[in-house]
Amino acid sequence: MITSAQNQQIKEIQALNQKHRERVKTGLFTAEGVKIISEAPKELIHKIFVSESFEKNNPEMIKDFRYEVIADSLFEKICDTKTPQGILGILKQPVYKREELLGDGHTSPFILLLEDLQDPGNVGTIIRTAEGAGVTGIMLTKGCVDLFAPKTIRSTMGSIFRVPFVCEDDTDDLVGWFKENQIHTYGAHLKGVCSYEEPSYREGTAFFIGNEGKGLSDALSDKCDTLIKIPMEGHLESLNAAVASAILMYKVHEQRK
Amino acid sequence: MITSAQNQQIKEIQALNQKHRERVKTGLFTAEGVKIISEAPKELIHKIFVSESFEKNNPEMIKDFRYEVIADSLFEKICDTKTPQGILGILKQPVYKREELLGDGHTSPFILLLEDLQDPGNVGTIIRTAEGAGVTGIMLTKGCVDLFAPKTIRSTMGSIFRVPFVCEDDTDDLVGWFKENQIHTYGAHLKGVCSYEEPSYREGTAFFIGNEGKGLSDALSDKCDTLIKIPMEGHLESLNAAVASAILMYKVHEQRK
Repeated sequence: MITSAQNQQIKEIQALNQKHRERVKTGLFTAEGVKIISEAPKELIHKIFVSESFEKNNPEMIKDFRYEVIADSLFEKICDTKTPQGILGILKQPVYKREELLGDGHTSPFILLLEDLQDPGNVGTIIRTAEGAGVTGIMLTKGCVDLFAPKTIRSTMGSIFRVPFVCEDDTDDLVGWFKENQIHTYGAHLKGVCSYEEPSYREGTAFFIGNEGKGLSDALSDKCDTLIKIPMEGHLESLNAAVASAILMYKVHEQRK
Repeated sequence: MITSAQNQQIKEIQALNQKHRERVKTGLFTAEGVKIISEAPKELIHKIFVSESFEKNNPEMIKDFRYEVIADSLFEKICDTKTPQGILGILKQPVYKREELLGDGHTSPFILLLEDLQDPGNVGTIIRTAEGAGVTGIMLTKGCVDLFAPKTIRSTMGSIFRVPFVCEDDTDDLVGWFKENQIHTYGAHLKGVCSYEEPSYREGTAFFIGNEGKGLSDALSDKCDTLIKIPMEGHLESLNAAVASAILMYKVHEQRK
């Protein structure tokens, strides 16, 4: 059993919890909790750690895993949540090619491009909603918050393992790629002239979603085929990014039923 | 200028920031930032505090207010946010009667009942979305997180001043009240047999939204006229509460245009 905070594996977990650079360098990340570990594809599991109590109380759940036991008090310290459940994994980051965002061919491509989103809860929630709405893939610009930060992963509620995504260093060649794949691109924009429920989204569709504070950049909104808006009553200036994305995504889902 | 953390007004701000009981006892709350203070109705403003730098850099914005100045370093300490903007108000909590949730008579009532929601960000985001979707009023059960906690207020983005709400200690007599006012009640429920886009929401409509982890209680779902669900692809078990609410609210908005 690991009891010391100086243990090399404990240091590795903490570095992966806290440092974006460490996650990039190793291609690994941490995930915590029964639900997410049980939903993780076996081939992505690098190592499992459980607390002493967890091992005692949940022998069935971990009998097929190789795992290390960590003393309860130390386990609590290394977790990112306030009331950890007692199981934590170091996992390999899934890696996709852009082509995998196009789906399985049974439905038209349905892509979400997130530009410089900064709130880990928003990004995680968007990925969770995307699975529900049948999105075939997600693109994130390099200015987005780290997808593999603990809070983002937690907010995905396991969808991180089921929705293909790519991080795009450069969005310059995207227009060509969308055109080649016959995907119509819609920018969510306060200046959109077209209300979101008007277009038909049955063919290939991509939504561009901008940063929480700034909205979609000119660089990206200039590249969209159509700017759309979600009408708002009252004196509201904008909707939350995860909320706006959800409204758009479920409109596609409804039309494609 | 206030420079001491022992100052009575500083202690009052901190108590209102941190303690639900203090907010209930006084009927006051704190709000921080230029946007929310400038959107607050004048009659709700109890007292304004600004940092030394804010006073120097924004004389125009505060010239019509009576305010107290707080030393920059102390101001940072008493704020709930990481990078405070330098203006904070102690405000009176708006109080509504249940009848005010019915709207102005120009549109049919459109009510959201939140049961025991625990995430301040969710509750705030729901109120923000509610304004955009044209909700006429919000009910919160007494098990909900405090509407006047700093994080909830921040997430409303000012909508807290524009969407009427009541906190319901007892939901027993609600059924009668909805019936009297010809409001059809819909529970968002995984076991809903009816998909959310099927009903017509043009007449009086109320959605019951359950707790993040547990969903809508049996007690409340038994009281609904209709249980509806939002269909989900993939292996997702549920949607985030703010996302589910948004999808429902905007379906009403779309139908009522």
